[in-house]
Formats: sequence, C-alpha cells, structure tokens
Amino acid sequence: MKKRSITVAFQGAPGAFSHRAAQQLFSEEVKVKPCQTFGEIFDAVSDNTASHGVIPIENTLHGSIHENYDNLLRYRLSIFGETTVRIEHHLITPPGVSFKSLKRVYSHPVALNQCRVFLQKHKRLEPLSYYDTAGSVQMIMSERPPEAAAIASETAAKIYGAAILKRNVEDNSQNFTRFFLVAKQDSSGLEPCSETGTWKTSIVFAVKNSPGTLFRAMACFALRDINLTKIESRPNREKPWEYMFYVDIMGRSNEPGVQRALTQLAEISSFSRILGSYCPRTR
Amino acid sequence: MKKRSITVAFQGAPGAFSHRAAQQLFSEEVKVKPCQTFGEIFDAVSDNTASHGVIPIENTLHGSIHENYDNLLRYRLSIFGETTVRIEHHLITPPGVSFKSLKRVYSHPVALNQCRVFLQKHKRLEPLSYYDTAGSVQMIMSERPPEAAAIASETAAKIYGAAILKRNVEDNSQNFTRFFLVAKQDSSGLEPCSETGTWKTSIVFAVKNSPGTLFRAMACFALRDINLTKIESRPNREKPWEYMFYVDIMGRSNEPGVQRALTQLAEISSFSRILGSYCPRTR
Repeated sequence: MKKRSITVAFQGAPGAFSHRAAQQLFSEEVKVKPCQTFGEIFDAVSDNTASHGVIPIENTLHGSIHENYDNLLRYRLSIFGETTVRIEHHLITPPGVSFKSLKRVYSHPVALNQCRVFLQKHKRLEPLSYYDTAGSVQMIMSERPPEAAAIASETAAKIYGAAILKRNVEDNSQNFTRFFLVAKQDSSGLEPCSETGTWKTSIVFAVKNSPGTLFRAMACFALRDINLTKIESRPNREKPWEYMFYVDIMGRSNEPGVQRALTQLAEISSFSRILGSYCPRTR
Repeated sequence: MKKRSITVAFQGAPGAFSHRAAQQLFSEEVKVKPCQTFGEIFDAVSDNTASHGVIPIENTLHGSIHENYDNLLRYRLSIFGETTVRIEHHLITPPGVSFKSLKRVYSHPVALNQCRVFLQKHKRLEPLSYYDTAGSVQMIMSERPPEAAAIASETAAKIYGAAILKRNVEDNSQNFTRFFLVAKQDSSGLEPCSETGTWKTSIVFAVKNSPGTLFRAMACFALRDINLTKIESRPNREKPWEYMFYVDIMGRSNEPGVQRALTQLAEISSFSRILGSYCPRTR
C-alpha cells in the first residue's frame, strides 16, 4: 500500500483525541475520515473506504472499551500499531476573546465532568453540553455565540483556528487513552517503533468457567517466561458459562516461544484468536 | 443500624439507573441522596450523611469503571451487595403527547448514541444533548419545551409523572451495568440473597511486573479449586513497574479455604485488600 493512499478513519469530529492518536501513529499528515460510530470505522476499513482505522481501546479512568474488542472479533482486521494520548482539556475561544468576558462553556458532558474543579472555581461560567468536544470548537468558531468558550483538545483549537485561553483545565492529569491502529494488512507510512518500544501481541480467548481453567491458560505463558502486560475477563453473554479473556503479552506472534505458547493456548481454550502484533509508536 | 435510618447516595438525578439499582437492592423504598460525582457518594457515606452508596462498577459495553475501583481503595468502605441493571432506554413525554407531534429528543449524549438506530429511522427527531438522562425527563416535565421528548429509564418516567411513548428504543439489548452497594458496616434492610445467589468476594492486589508473578497469585486460588469470576489488570501509574489486579472469587472471606488463599496472596503480593463479600440481590 503506497503512502499516498493512506486514509485514516476515526470516531469524532476532526480534532478529536482519536485524531491526535492518528497524528502520533503516522510519520506525516494523512487523509482522515471522521466517523460517527466505532462500527463505521470498521466498515470503512473493511470496504476499503479507509486504509486504516484508529480506535480507543482503554482509558485509565474508564477502563476497557468492550465495544471495540467486540468489533475486533466481529471484523477480520488486525492491530498494527498502538499509541497513548494524554487527555488534556483546554479552554478555547475565538482569537482575541478575554477570559473576563466569558459566561458559558460548551463541551461534551464527559469533558465538562472532567473539568469540574475549574468550573466550580469559576461559577459564572455556565457549562453547556454539546455532542462532541472538537465539534464544540467548530461551533463556537462558526456560529460565534456571545461570551462563549469551548473545552477541547489542542488539536481541535489548531484545526478550527481558535485560541487556547487556559491550558489544562482538567481535574486529573492521569487521564490517558490507549489507541489501536487497525488495518487489513501491514502498511508503510507508520512511525518507526520507538526506542523503548518492544513488541506486544494481543490475544482473545475463551475458556469454560470452572476452577483452574484460567490457571492452565496462564501456564502457557508463565512456563515460557512470557510476560503479560494486560489481562481482563469478560462474561460471554452468548455462552453463559464461558468467559472471554483479553490478554496482551510481550513478544511478536512469529517468535518461536510465543508461537508455542499460542499453540498450547489453542489446545486448552474453546476459542482463541491473535488480534495482532505491534509496537508502541509516538511522534 | 435501623431500617428507618437508611439513606442511599447515588450519582445522577432521581430516576437514574443507579436509582433503579438502589431499588433492586433494598426490600422497600428508602430515602435517597442524589450526588453529582462518584466521589461525593463516598464522602457522604464516610461522613454519615448517607448510610449506603450505590456505585456502578462495570458495564457490558464500556468495561470497568476504574474511577470507582480507585474510590474503593481510597475510602475505607466495604462492599455489601451487588445487583445488575439492564440499561433500557424509553422515549418519554408529558402525558397525552402524540408521537407524530414530536420534533426533538433530549438526553445524555451517551444515551442518544445508544439509540442511534431509532433516531436514524425517525430523522425528523432532532437529538439534543442534555446533562443527564433522568434530568432530561425532569426538564421536559417542568419546562414543557414544545414538540419535545426525552430518552431515559422507566424509573425516571414514573418519578416525574411522565408517559412512556415507545419502549426500548436502545440499539443493543445486551447493555447491562453491575452495581455495588457500599457502606461502613453491614446493615439491615437489604433484600435477602437471591435463590441462585452464591457469595462472592472482591479483592484488589498488586504484584511486580515480571514473568510469572500473576501466575503465582492465581495459584493461591487454583490450588484450592476456588473459581474466579473476574480478573482485570491495571498498570499502577504511581509505581510504573507494578500492576494492580481486581479479582472476584466465589466464596465468602470468612470461609477457611478462602482465608488461606488470601493469606497466601498477601504473602506473594506487594499489596492486597479485601473489598468485601456479598451476594447478588434483586427485587
């Protein structure tokens, strides 16, 4: 796949945190395809409307995004990259607006909730909910509602030509989202693996819910000194007595030790699938 | 603690899904204390403004709510009950309003997003974001904006005397949220354990991130045939090379086998804490 054919689908308006993730993953600016839902991202990559998709997979405050694990299982795409974005919220206005003149702030309710300390300190600022963080910047720039600001990312401010009036109005500095890059096949254009980047492999498998089944599954990795960096169980609602596990291990799926571990896992689980091998990337 | 002294704190307006969870947990109507944030719930129970708190801990689509695991660690409350609420969204209006007359629908953006199929089918209904699902019902009942409906729970419709015009406008019928009941000490007034209810214990522990550490922790349970119903890892951001694990096991913390497993776990982990033993309850 040639570099010029790269189009990255993500959920949200241009300037969303997913857009920032896409910028971190690729070595230069790429075409983007904003989508309304996560399902649309997977559809776009499946039918070649986009070459890649960027999906959030977990957040340090809110946990794993199961919907996207479901999508990874439902569609036949693989993971080729990983990046982490710190969720930083800024107070954004059209250029030249003073802080003192502000009376209302638009953003997504989740973002407003994450800036509660700032909003409580400045009680004159009425929080008003909007569909999307980046979309609220687009709206204040195009419609120019009086005395209004938005709360969104730096990327959103840049894209819509807005000014950042106050940086980092979020309550919690430990708010990070981890994103996966998904595609049908490996492709050029990605940032090289970072210095500290070592390969990881994501796996999904299912075992019957009885004592010791998970322990036997863990043994596949522990007996080969393969380190786990994530494990998460999820009841399988279609098969009530089964559990699904999401596991990330250190190593690449084509390394002999990892291959042997995965063969053993397939033997003892009722279902298993390699979602992809990748290394962390950042620009 | 006497029954009449029960006050249950939860996040959201009256009629929120947390309110429904509270109704499922107690054998009769109890006083409620709506809170704006999860932290406020823990504060209210800690300073005795409320006797109990109801907190969402995981959702089938969105995963674990890490913020509440953090609160469980930060505050010294215990878990005494568990219940699961199916997230059902209904189209709600003041009584006597016809579906044909509607032009706009208010709700929290997450709820609007979960009713995308319905909203796409009825494109004349403009989705308008509001701070809270139950709050949007309260608003349409008190302010009566013209040609407007809300999307929220049945509990919200009942509380504000509104009518359900269309039931179950949500896309996904597999949307469930699991709630914990937290308190300082055990208390009367709870629904008895359900017939199928068997005791569970929730534990948090930390181990160093090196191959085999999790495997050794799992051995504490597997070697005693104690079944795990949940496991989830989370990087410890304060100690970069450590992982935190949330584990639910079958059994009560005062059973001899469970006690021995927990003693062994304490021995091999750098930190461990029992969050509580409880059985599922439903009314």
